[in-house]
Amino acid sequence: MISPFDDTYFMKKALEEAEVAYDKGEIPVGVVVVINDRIIARGHNLTETLNDVTAHAEMQAITAAASFLGGKYLQNCTMYITLEPCQMCAGALYWSQISKIVFGASDPQRGYRKNGVQLHPKTKVVSGIMEEDCGDLLKRFFIEKRNLN
Amino acid sequence: MISPFDDTYFMKKALEEAEVAYDKGEIPVGVVVVINDRIIARGHNLTETLNDVTAHAEMQAITAAASFLGGKYLQNCTMYITLEPCQMCAGALYWSQISKIVFGASDPQRGYRKNGVQLHPKTKVVSGIMEEDCGDLLKRFFIEKRNLN
Repeated sequence: MISPFDDTYFMKKALEEAEVAYDKGEIPVGVVVVINDRIIARGHNLTETLNDVTAHAEMQAITAAASFLGGKYLQNCTMYITLEPCQMCAGALYWSQISKIVFGASDPQRGYRKNGVQLHPKTKVVSGIMEEDCGDLLKRFFIEKRNLN
Repeated sequence: MISPFDDTYFMKKALEEAEVAYDKGEIPVGVVVVINDRIIARGHNLTETLNDVTAHAEMQAITAAASFLGGKYLQNCTMYITLEPCQMCAGALYWSQISKIVFGASDPQRGYRKNGVQLHPKTKVVSGIMEEDCGDLLKRFFIEKRNLN
């Protein structure tokens, strides 16, 4: 039997979260955290709603996943993220010792890879899953913002 | 008249926060956020208590200061931190556009300067204020931890 649970399946779920952010007028970034093919945490960017620069999707999902697991380390977890994490979120992922991250669109300006931020040595990285869909939602958001101003 | 409010005055307040963390069995790092010589936010490390790697003193204080100010940017604010921020906290400080950070002890292993993490161009940095006192509290914590194990 072919499992329906692959990286694309879970990235679609992260993209659904990004769409929730979009509908709230937030920069549309979404996240899910998965363990054994089960989603244990979701998150979407809430920096405007909460008036808080730390309220990125990843930060909320790290806290939620740790709460679900009852421990602060995200061993055997994979985080699916629609956009390459920034240096803050990559720093948080470092501390979480998460096993794997998968992201969609790259962020050459604000992404963690630009400045050499370190992830944990235990963390595997996959990039470019549904890159176009994840990037298109962001582009749509910024075009709309520009036209409103 | 000589003002009592200098960097040492506020670093002492941050160190008081670090001592609160120490008493809770947390790695003793403390923070205050100051605007016009007034403390508007305090924080100490709570990663063990909250089971959350994102619960560094700085992260909590950024959220608290933004809440006090009613806006997410920490313009005209100075954060006093007993230890050099890690890459996660430096990343959060970047997003906050904070005007100034002052830290006590350096952290050559986990500090933000090691990997080239960027602070915001608007952010001034002062280091080494009460370096010895801030560092001694951390050393005392780790010696005690070792002896208990």
